[in-house]
Amino acid sequence: MSRRTPRRPEYRKINKDLFVLTYGALVAQLCKDYEKDEDVNAYLDKMGYGIGTRLVEDFLARSCVRRCHSYSEIADIIAQVAFKMYLGITPSVTCHNSSRNEFSLILDKNPLAEFVEELPAGRSSLCYCSLLCGVIRGALEMVNLAADVTFLQDRLKGDSVTEIGITFLKKLDEKKYRRKK
Amino acid sequence: MSRRTPRRPEYRKINKDLFVLTYGALVAQLCKDYEKDEDVNAYLDKMGYGIGTRLVEDFLARSCVRRCHSYSEIADIIAQVAFKMYLGITPSVTCHNSSRNEFSLILDKNPLAEFVEELPAGRSSLCYCSLLCGVIRGALEMVNLAADVTFLQDRLKGDSVTEIGITFLKKLDEKKYRRKK
Repeated sequence: MSRRTPRRPEYRKINKDLFVLTYGALVAQLCKDYEKDEDVNAYLDKMGYGIGTRLVEDFLARSCVRRCHSYSEIADIIAQVAFKMYLGITPSVTCHNSSRNEFSLILDKNPLAEFVEELPAGRSSLCYCSLLCGVIRGALEMVNLAADVTFLQDRLKGDSVTEIGITFLKKLDEKKYRRKK
Repeated sequence: MSRRTPRRPEYRKINKDLFVLTYGALVAQLCKDYEKDEDVNAYLDKMGYGIGTRLVEDFLARSCVRRCHSYSEIADIIAQVAFKMYLGITPSVTCHNSSRNEFSLILDKNPLAEFVEELPAGRSSLCYCSLLCGVIRGALEMVNLAADVTFLQDRLKGDSVTEIGITFLKKLDEKKYRRKK
């Protein structure tokens, strides 16, 4: 991972509580609009995808991240720079397979679900933070990296941690890889 | 205005872009769900009200704001502490009347509408940031201060600034006023 000094990020910083509560209101609205949890999840993911495609340019400019040479580096950037910047946390990263294209981000706490004690009644399949998967997927796609991004564990469903799985779908040509301009 | 030193606010700070884009997605969703702009505005305001009632306790704890003795002080707190904390800007405050219960917050820039160039076609009465009015109204009500909060000007509607009007509805007993415990 290679980084230059970030450009004046301070003026864009805010306390995250208003965001977290607004996100909760968005999910509540979608739960009113869609009967099936799967539809809410898909909508949040799709919405996140659109956000990710817009967010990525700004992220690259502000974070001053330079070219990565492996999926492992990219997963580290997502966890250590992007999550830190947008959600104020740094998930730990693990790699699952020998071809090193499957990673997990482990979140001890999920700030986006901070004010949620449990899933709403009758919503046991709701993937409350699906938006995040979509954001990651959309952002990666904009830099030419196709990926599957899904929640593998969720504290809101009784798991001990929240785990986001990222599977990069193409073989990375490490010598040729460039950020899409 | 009286303030103690804030308690470690740093760990809650995030870049606001993800929030701003997510808010845009929320408004877009409501525009799909409700045909009339007035219904979208009312929904956003109501949603904001609920958020404000939840946000206020945390705001009071983190900002360490102490008792205010006038509406003028309260308006200053909203502009200089709350807006700074949650949106990263400090609106200027003006007072409109001799009984000093009508104030305007003047926003040169509105970060919540940062990525919005213009209102969607056919949505000329949309009050894009109605949520903010609701948040302020809800938060004030939780500290026993009834207020009308509305947008008086909006750059998205061609005005030169964005202006939020706050009218406090009760006479303030300056000696007896306490924050609701």
